[in-house]
Amino acid sequence: MKFEVEKEVNHIVNFIRDYYQKNHLKGVVIGISGGKDSGVVAALFTKALGSENVVGFALPCHSHQEDYQDAKLVSDYYHFPLYQIDLTPAFDDIRKEVGKIQTIDEITTKNSDINLKPRLRMSALYYMAAFLSEIKGGTYLVAGTSNLCELYVGYFTKGGDNVHDISLLANYTVEEVIAIGEYLKVPEKVLYKTPNDGLSNQSDEEKLGVTYRDIASYIEDKNSVSDAVGEKIERLHQNNQHKFHIPTCPREIEES
Amino acid sequence: MKFEVEKEVNHIVNFIRDYYQKNHLKGVVIGISGGKDSGVVAALFTKALGSENVVGFALPCHSHQEDYQDAKLVSDYYHFPLYQIDLTPAFDDIRKEVGKIQTIDEITTKNSDINLKPRLRMSALYYMAAFLSEIKGGTYLVAGTSNLCELYVGYFTKGGDNVHDISLLANYTVEEVIAIGEYLKVPEKVLYKTPNDGLSNQSDEEKLGVTYRDIASYIEDKNSVSDAVGEKIERLHQNNQHKFHIPTCPREIEES
Repeated sequence: MKFEVEKEVNHIVNFIRDYYQKNHLKGVVIGISGGKDSGVVAALFTKALGSENVVGFALPCHSHQEDYQDAKLVSDYYHFPLYQIDLTPAFDDIRKEVGKIQTIDEITTKNSDINLKPRLRMSALYYMAAFLSEIKGGTYLVAGTSNLCELYVGYFTKGGDNVHDISLLANYTVEEVIAIGEYLKVPEKVLYKTPNDGLSNQSDEEKLGVTYRDIASYIEDKNSVSDAVGEKIERLHQNNQHKFHIPTCPREIEES
Repeated sequence: MKFEVEKEVNHIVNFIRDYYQKNHLKGVVIGISGGKDSGVVAALFTKALGSENVVGFALPCHSHQEDYQDAKLVSDYYHFPLYQIDLTPAFDDIRKEVGKIQTIDEITTKNSDINLKPRLRMSALYYMAAFLSEIKGGTYLVAGTSNLCELYVGYFTKGGDNVHDISLLANYTVEEVIAIGEYLKVPEKVLYKTPNDGLSNQSDEEKLGVTYRDIASYIEDKNSVSDAVGEKIERLHQNNQHKFHIPTCPREIEES
């Protein structure tokens, strides 16, 4: 796919400004993980709206303190405020309530735990967007940060990071996102960090079993990767379709 | 729109069975509010899958105890287990964390608070669906409960009750849902309860400013209601489109 970084950056900035003007919106709330995607999204929004209309949130939930420091690198560089909302107590409370129903341990709730975190993050971001809209007298949106490669293989939590109000990177591969980040001078430590979900102690690529580079190649040309890799990507793609389309019962008797 | 209750019920039951067979699924998790929609959804799932594959959850969050008793009427009648997960502590924790950033009160966080509750409910239902899938050795889905009238005017919380894995009532009006409930003998107290969100101390119709009957009429024939009512419904419909479609930046340079 053709890609010229300066043109694409101007195009995304115009996309944001047009959408905000047309809908009379004010600001944006971004969950800043300390990874490249949220760093690039923050860079694009500060360029489009000015840093005074961007608010970042670090949303730890049994997280490493280092993530906060990396998030701070981003907010310091682009001059927007970064607040922390610790979701660990809410997470622990839900587990505790569940534990009253039935004995649980970290093995049986592994999947539940991993996906609860992004859902609580989404909940906190919308909480703050509504609060800021109220006190600032103008609508704040919640920014999405997923890129094309993650979306293609369904690497996100349904009801978590896929719930947002505006999406900038959904049509750009990981390498293109990094190119945009380089152009906008996203701090190197953040931009080149090995992507991981901050949840499972594995890198994204270890979890997926394929590389983002292979996914990007496959999206461009299905014959550009080995059969084994292609099958793995296609299986992930198919198995995660349910995250995009909710099966809905049609009526038995259609209108005549 | 044509509607014959027995045919539609058989049709929905077959829709559930087909989807479960085709995708090798096991059970369903339903948030039981004590209102008609979740009562009817529970009735349909117990008919389709057997009560042994249905698990109900009462999810209070600063709620009235009466809601639990009404939920229990449903689970008792259809013989599926009902568990309670109190989300009040998690809700209070998030508010407390936010209060560390800035002083908040119930007026400035009114919108934030109202919508946090369904988001926590969604999070808890997915937590339990993943947990049950793990311990029962078969996949549990999260059931949606929205009906056509609610969906038409966007009366749901984005990232809350609109996040689910299977939707049964999305193409049926409120009156049709009640007809299905009568046919399946949903307890009368639940079926005829004035619909309210359990969040704001107002009935749905008070909040919306229009009746569900008017919405149903309007969907069928836009000229069947007064101009003023029609305009109100259309405005709700348009203003909530953003809950259905997330604006996503396209690429500047399309593939040649």
